[in-house]
Order: sequence, then structure tokens, then C-alpha cells
Amino acid sequence: MPAPQSTEPLYILTISCPDAVGIVAAVAGFLADRDAFITESTHFGDAVTNRFFMRTVFAPGATSPPPDGFAHAFSRIAERFEMVWGLHEAHRRERVLIMVGKAEHCLNDLLYRYRTGELAIDVAAVVSNHPVLAPLAEWHGVPFHHLPVTVETRAEQEAALLRLVADLSVDLVVLARYMQILSPPTCERLKGRCINIHHSFLPGFRGARPYHQAHERGVKLIGATAHYVTPELDEGPIIEQAVERVDHSYDPDALAAVGRDIESIVLARAVRLHVEHRVLINGRKTVVLR
Amino acid sequence: MPAPQSTEPLYILTISCPDAVGIVAAVAGFLADRDAFITESTHFGDAVTNRFFMRTVFAPGATSPPPDGFAHAFSRIAERFEMVWGLHEAHRRERVLIMVGKAEHCLNDLLYRYRTGELAIDVAAVVSNHPVLAPLAEWHGVPFHHLPVTVETRAEQEAALLRLVADLSVDLVVLARYMQILSPPTCERLKGRCINIHHSFLPGFRGARPYHQAHERGVKLIGATAHYVTPELDEGPIIEQAVERVDHSYDPDALAAVGRDIESIVLARAVRLHVEHRVLINGRKTVVLR
Amino acid sequence: MPAPQSTEPLYILTISCPDAVGIVAAVAGFLADRDAFITESTHFGDAVTNRFFMRTVFAPGATSPPPDGFAHAFSRIAERFEMVWGLHEAHRRERVLIMVGKAEHCLNDLLYRYRTGELAIDVAAVVSNHPVLAPLAEWHGVPFHHLPVTVETRAEQEAALLRLVADLSVDLVVLARYMQILSPPTCERLKGRCINIHHSFLPGFRGARPYHQAHERGVKLIGATAHYVTPELDEGPIIEQAVERVDHSYDPDALAAVGRDIESIVLARAVRLHVEHRVLINGRKTVVLR
Amino acid sequence: MPAPQSTEPLYILTISCPDAVGIVAAVAGFLADRDAFITESTHFGDAVTNRFFMRTVFAPGATSPPPDGFAHAFSRIAERFEMVWGLHEAHRRERVLIMVGKAEHCLNDLLYRYRTGELAIDVAAVVSNHPVLAPLAEWHGVPFHHLPVTVETRAEQEAALLRLVADLSVDLVVLARYMQILSPPTCERLKGRCINIHHSFLPGFRGARPYHQAHERGVKLIGATAHYVTPELDEGPIIEQAVERVDHSYDPDALAAVGRDIESIVLARAVRLHVEHRVLINGRKTVVLR
Repeated sequence: MPAPQSTEPLYILTISCPDAVGIVAAVAGFLADRDAFITESTHFGDAVTNRFFMRTVFAPGATSPPPDGFAHAFSRIAERFEMVWGLHEAHRRERVLIMVGKAEHCLNDLLYRYRTGELAIDVAAVVSNHPVLAPLAEWHGVPFHHLPVTVETRAEQEAALLRLVADLSVDLVVLARYMQILSPPTCERLKGRCINIHHSFLPGFRGARPYHQAHERGVKLIGATAHYVTPELDEGPIIEQAVERVDHSYDPDALAAVGRDIESIVLARAVRLHVEHRVLINGRKTVVLR
Repeated sequence: MPAPQSTEPLYILTISCPDAVGIVAAVAGFLADRDAFITESTHFGDAVTNRFFMRTVFAPGATSPPPDGFAHAFSRIAERFEMVWGLHEAHRRERVLIMVGKAEHCLNDLLYRYRTGELAIDVAAVVSNHPVLAPLAEWHGVPFHHLPVTVETRAEQEAALLRLVADLSVDLVVLARYMQILSPPTCERLKGRCINIHHSFLPGFRGARPYHQAHERGVKLIGATAHYVTPELDEGPIIEQAVERVDHSYDPDALAAVGRDIESIVLARAVRLHVEHRVLINGRKTVVLR
Repeated sequence: MPAPQSTEPLYILTISCPDAVGIVAAVAGFLADRDAFITESTHFGDAVTNRFFMRTVFAPGATSPPPDGFAHAFSRIAERFEMVWGLHEAHRRERVLIMVGKAEHCLNDLLYRYRTGELAIDVAAVVSNHPVLAPLAEWHGVPFHHLPVTVETRAEQEAALLRLVADLSVDLVVLARYMQILSPPTCERLKGRCINIHHSFLPGFRGARPYHQAHERGVKLIGATAHYVTPELDEGPIIEQAVERVDHSYDPDALAAVGRDIESIVLARAVRLHVEHRVLINGRKTVVLR
Repeated sequence: MPAPQSTEPLYILTISCPDAVGIVAAVAGFLADRDAFITESTHFGDAVTNRFFMRTVFAPGATSPPPDGFAHAFSRIAERFEMVWGLHEAHRRERVLIMVGKAEHCLNDLLYRYRTGELAIDVAAVVSNHPVLAPLAEWHGVPFHHLPVTVETRAEQEAALLRLVADLSVDLVVLARYMQILSPPTCERLKGRCINIHHSFLPGFRGARPYHQAHERGVKLIGATAHYVTPELDEGPIIEQAVERVDHSYDPDALAAVGRDIESIVLARAVRLHVEHRVLINGRKTVVLR
């Protein structure tokens, strides 16, 4: 699953549609007819829902049309197969807005990967209901917006958030241990483009204080889950999960310390998968095309 | 956590008691005074419950008393510290009764490890409510008892089981994918000496058909959990857990196939930890002293 | 990477050729023109060697030609792109010959998976230079051939092995901890269809007694490697590897015990990948299309 | 293996000596006689070298002597058993000097853990032969020393390094992807207190450009190794290792990207184990007492 390295023009075509004979042939033929060279292609047919998912990366050739031309011509194939589809420039960096509370581990990790180019994103802004992480954002050259929130001001605060998303042309909102729950309408508005990191191996330990729950239950592995945000708390489609071994000697603080490393890694992986257009939504689940 | 290899006399002392100054010194001094050589010793003080747990392996020396003498003399220390304790011959093989349904993977794995000596146990019997696994047990030279069960005959069947446990001097009952639920009184009778393998990463996916639940939820890792049986279904103290990575392409059957490998390994590890007297119960949890 | 479950006709087409524009389109178009429904397709273009690798699974439709017709028609595309290719019935079980020494863990695991259908293979024979594992093979209903070997008789013994391979129509030879080294000519004869399990994480600890080497070096993880056999000892293309955590308390015997579990799992995975036609050879390396 | 959390006085006693009857009793009795409460204790007897290793954490009681008194009194026991031993204040932060080249991932990770208190160390200085990472060090409030090096100036540069180690009372030197090889005399001077991160799973891929070596060999897992520095390149006692799964699609750059995450984690774990006095050297190997 390495990221594309070169800087030659490269496009990513993502498709989701009812499964049928001839989809791969139609897409591959379409690209070959336009002198495009496929560098990666993965697909998956879900036998349960009978839906087909595809991700194809291609480089235009000498006689290829411009992107607009591709898209225009492709729309006829898309109609025939009732496709939900997207055509993305592979080297365009997705614009990301990161929301945080007071915990800095996920933010630090994402900003480090952004700054070093490890993660090919543009961080448009960091938003927090607390001011404490402003210096961290600023050192990485990222604007920090302090949007405090109370029960009374939630609607207003979320409106400010959505304005930032619009004004900054944000593609993806990342809840990097943002401890507030977004209202259902905001979740709907950000559907499919808002990723949360939950500090447990879902569906175990939903809700608050999962490391305390894990300590009480005496589990031998703890985990983290990155998922798309939906109005149902901790129930959105899962993108990535990981676990780490612990034992009886870990108190809730020690579990949380181990958890911080897992959370950072799982969230970074999920963001990478998303911005590389590898994650397609399949009802309550995801298809991750590596 | 290797198993003891030699055949010289070796004893395992396990202790659980309220934490206090001087426990290690008292135990170690007691052993040194009796010319015993400590080859392993681990302990753990739980700061939450304020209980202390210890496992010490020792070899008697030339002037050591016989085991009975050790035990008799030790009871004074045990009283002083209000210890729950046990003195076990390290080379004595625990007698194990394995209960199964129709699924053979865990049974096959345990019998293989028993037959090759990989797992230092004596398998006293295999008990099943179905006859299908009789040839497997018999090939390994283990008596097979077919105890069918219906709602009406459950009490009677469990009485037969408990008679076998008594008659065969069984130390440990292993539910190796036995798909029946034991009644609360039987769970109580087998408390601390009955291990179940649950085919999910508890506390996620409690109850029936966990691989179908996992498929519906779209998790990216599946797991298995070995725990002591208690009257509360799937809530007993956890001994061992493990997970394996899966993806969207796994249907419930494929998840179950991956799961079978994890279940076999997790159950074998839990049995080994138990028969090596490494697992001490701490309320709803375990302390596993490696 | 789940195995195909259904029993409807299904074919696997594997391709390796110089990379070029239009390969996917040519293959997918060829199949669509013949009413074939692609259920899986994966490919990989190696930017270093400029070679292209593809595995496509398809179900024939109502108006599809018979397999021979497919193959005949496909040979023209194959020629155009200079393909090395194969067309395999997905439900045909590959015929496997397993070679062993005295250690039974890998054999036991493979025979268990064969008998329960976990691994969709036919085990044509077990061959060993020792008689000890005959009962295990026979209990699983597999013919056992005792072919002892000395320095003087090696050529003769390997000739007998190759006769068995021919007479039993063996597709794959598995060295399941067979402790003899096959001669270079025999390695050549079995090129690409002979898998060995090496009991270390190659390239560390090549050669003899790897667990003793690992113990001396004090490594914190030990592993196993399944690879195709080539005349250069332990240097063939790697198919699969895995590791497990150990610590200072493991002596060589304890390392070997942990190693046995890893070896069994890694070898079973490699055999499965091979018989599902997922492993394509790329010079000294493999491309594994999951 | 959680770090101590409280701030009450706490001591760590580490011992290495020839194995014998009565060591644990002597140590535990010594502590109990002085009203010390053992909170953790682990030991290991190496049956091959016949050496005994012990780490004991204890809290002084109301009538305990001061640390000096402990140490003085203990020296008699130490002599009797020919112990190499140390008595450390558990809450004293070890002083660490970090050496880097141009790669920042390990430095960033260590400084993050230092700044947030995740890793209980004092970073006394960052030393590099390149100036590029100065801003990173300075943002974390750590002095940065630029000590460039050429073949001609190596001796002089290492002398400057050793002066810093002395002047800053450095306990531990961490080579966090410092790409220069220290001379044998400097390795000797820093023996047992200099940790290197090697970017491969040793003993595989010793020496330069291990990710290129790994790519050529086509391995399916890549790893990192933290070890003490010795005059023999990449041969020092291993403290910690980890691996991550890769496949044929990873070119050397992609392998290196995955590797950076493993390197950071493995190095941080090794530093933590060292500063918690959990790592005792046993010839060419380590004993890690968790």
C-alpha cells in the first residue's frame, strides 16, 4: 500500500455500482482506448449486497485527453452501470482540518507526518475547544482556531466549524481525540468525510472511558478503531483497527499510555487510506482497496 | 514462559493474599531455610484491590523435607498472611477432560499437543453431545463419552459429566467449542477449573454467531478469548486473547476459518498457562504470572 | 484471501509478461466478449523489472465457450503480450506430495487441514526417510512411502521420489521439515512446485540449527519462512513469513516449541497461496496476489 | 511493564551474580528487616551461564534507613554472592544525549515522549553532524550541538562528544539514526550506556542500506532492532525488536517509510526499558526483566 512517489500526472478512478458482467472490461477498455497506462487496479464484488467496488490508478499517455475529457467521456459508462464514481488527481493533496481536545498525541503524529511529507496531505487548520495545543499547531505552521463549546453554544460552534470547512475548501475532517460529540445534522453534513479515532477495539467498550472499562474487564489486548462519523455514536463504518498486548499489571493510566501509540498509528493509517481514495463505503461497512 | 523440561523434583507454590511488608522475604526465607533452590519466582501486587499474587518454582535440595513437610511447615506462614495457596508438583500432569460439539479444530489441536508432549497434560476423557469426534479421540488413545443432551435431560447429563470429573480425578474441564451452556450450579461446581474458548474478541460480540456479528459490523480484526466459565455467559475472567487481521473480502465462513486457527492457539495457550499454575483469579479478572 | 466456496465452474487465469498499455483491457475485454463474469482480479506492475503480473478469477456464463475454447482463443492475446500464463480450474484440488523427517508438527497440521477441507488439496502421498510418521499418514488415509537415504543412495532415492511425482500426477511437493537437502538437479526438476519451510526468519540464521543460533544471538522475535526450493540452500523466493515474540527465558528447546507453531501456520499459508495460484515468481522474489 | 506513576520515594535494586541457593531470600529478608515494601520483583536464572539476574523495586517504610544506609548495608550481601549491583532512585530521570543525522523520525518521537512526560527522561542535549534538526530540538527546549565529522576529524569530534557526556552528566547516549560509526575506543567508553537503532531485523541485513537489501531479497516482514553499541558493528546485545508486514508492492522507499514507524517505536521501548533499569547484560545478550 505504498503511496505514489513520482510527480508525473496520475489519476485515481473510484467506482461503486451494482455488480454485472463487463465492468472491468468496460473500464479497462475505456482507459486503453485513451492511451492510459494502468499502474494499479483493485476491485471487489460483495456477494452479499451484490455491489461492485473498484479503484484504478492510471497515467495518461501521449495521446490521452485532459482530465475533463476523461470525466466527460466516462460519464456514459458510468450511467450504463449506475456507478457512483470519482476521478481524482493522485498528486493533489487533500485538505484536512484536524479537531482536537487537550490530548496531543494524535495531533502531534499527524502534524509530524504532514510536515515531513510522510503523509501527503495539506493541513488547512487545527480546531479545538481548548487553547492548549495552539503552540504545537503553530510550530508546524498550521493556523489554529479556538472554538470553545458549551451545551448552549454547540449549534453556533458547529456552524463556525462548518464555515471553516467551506471557507478553507476542506476535504476531510479528522477528529483526533476531539472529546465532544458532533450533533446529528453536522455528522450528516460531513458524511463520508469525517474520521474519528475511538480509543477502544470497537465494538467492545463503546462510549466513555474505554480504558477504565478495559481495566475492569481484565482484557489481554487493547485497541483503537478509526471510523467514519455517523449520527450513531461509535457505530460508523470502520476503516482501520489495531491492538497491542497488555497484562494484569497495567492500570488504566498505563493502558491509556499504550493506547495512545495505537491510536496515533491507526488514525494515521486511516487518514492515509482515505486520502489515497482507497476507502469506499458499503452500507455500514467499508471496502478498503489496497 | 517455557515449560519446565527436566524431570528432577520441582514444586510450584502459588499464593494470593492481602498485600503486606515481608511476604516475599517470608516465603523466600522459608525456602532458603529448607535448602530449596528457587528457579522462577514472579509476583504482583494489585494497587487497586491491595491483593498480592505470587508463583514460585523451587527445587528441593539435599537436606530439604518431603513435600508434606513443606506444606505442613508452610501453613504457619500462610496463616500469618491470610494466604490462599497451593503447592503443586511441577512434573505431575494435570488431568484434563475435554468437552466438544461437532467442531474438531480445538480438539485436534489439544490432542496433538497432548500426544506429542508439547502440552504436559493427561487427557482423561473427551465428552461430547455428538458422536462424530469419537474416532479422533480414539486414535489418540483417549476414551470418548457420548453424553447427548436435550432441554429435558440437561440436569441428568450434567450430573453424568460431574460424575466423570470425580471418577476420573479430573483437574480441569476444557470447553473446546462445546456449544451447550452449562447450568449455573455446574458452573459453580467447576469454578476456577473450567476453561471456555469464545470465538470472539470479548467483550465484543458476546453470545451466538459472533463471526456473523463481526461480518455485519465490518471489523478489521477478529479474535478469540479463553476464559474461566462462570454462571454469567461470556463474562468469566479472561485468561488469554489474540486477534488476526481480516478485510472486507471475508464472508462469515472465511472469518470462521481464520477464527478456527486463533481459537486453537488461544485455547492451547490458556490450558498451558492454567496447568503450569500461572493463572490466579483476582475477582472478575486474572493475574497471569509468566 | 478467503478460498472460493461455491462449486459452480470457476477458472483462474494467471499471467506474467512485460508491462505495457492495454493488458488489463485486453484480458478483461476478452473475458467480457465470452460472457465471463470476473469475480476477483488483482495485478501488479513491478517498476524495477518492468514486468506485469495478473491473477483473474472468472465464472463462465451461459454463452461462454468450454475451457479448451478459452485457452485456445486466449493464446493469441498471450502471444501479443509475450505472456507466461496458466488457466486453472478453481475447484480442482492440486495434488500434493508431502516430505517429512521425524518431526510431525507440520505434517499433522497439513493433514488436519486436508482432512477437514480447510485446505482444498489432495494429498497424494507422504514420503519420508524415516518410518515413524507412517501411522499418522495412514490414519488420515494417505499412502506413506518410506524412502530411506544415505550419501550413497541419494541419487537413487531422489529418482524414486521423482517417479512418485510423475506416477501420482503430483502438482506440488511440500518439504514439511524434511531434513535432507535435495540435489541441484532435483531442485531444478521441481522448480516452482516445491515449497520448503525454513525454521528461521530468513535471511537471518541460514543453515543448520537456527533455534540454537537464535538463542546465542539473543533475538527477541523468532520466525519461520516458506520459500520455493532452489539449488541455492535457503535462498529461494520467499512466499510467506511470520514471527512470534520470545525473551531471554527461552532456551533452544523452548524456542523450537514456539517455532513449531509458527512453522505450521506459515507453511499452511504458503501451500494455500500456491494452490490458489496466487504466487507468481518474479526472479528471486515472489508476487503474491491476494 | 507500566512506568511507576507515584512520586513517593521508590528504589530499584538491580543484581547480577552467579546463581546460588538463598539469593532471593537474602535480598528479600534484607529489605523486610529494613521495613521496605517490595512493589515489584523479577528475576531470572540462566541455566546455560549459571548466572542470576534480579530487579527489585521497593518503597522505604517509616523506619527504613536512608538510601546511603541501604547501600552500605547491602554491600555485605553483595560481596557474599559476588554481585554486580546498582541501587537507583526510581523517580530520578536519567539524563539522555541523543545523536542524530538528518533523519528526524526517531528524534521527533523521543522528544515528543520526553516533552509530554510519556518517557520519564531528561534530554540533556541533541548532537548531530548536520545542522538540519536544530529547530526541532530547540522547539522542545533542548540544546543542540552541531559536531560535524570527517575521516580526519573523527577522533576530535568523538572527544567533543565524550566531553559533553561528562559535562552534562549523561547517563545514556541514544543513536537515533546517527549514520556515523563510533570508533572502538568510544564504543568501549560508552559500554552498556549507548543504544543504537538498526533499521533491520538483525541478524538479517547487517550493514548499509538494509531496506534495499530487504527489497532485493523479497522478504514479507521488515523490522528494526535496538541494541547496545559494541565495537563489533550491529553485533551488540539486542534489547528490543519488532516487525511489520509488507509485500511485493513495496519499493525500497516504501519499505523505509514503514520502517521509520517501527524504528521509532522500537527505540522508544528500548530507551524506556533501559531507564527503568530493566535491561541487564548477559554476555552477548540481554535479560529484560519486565
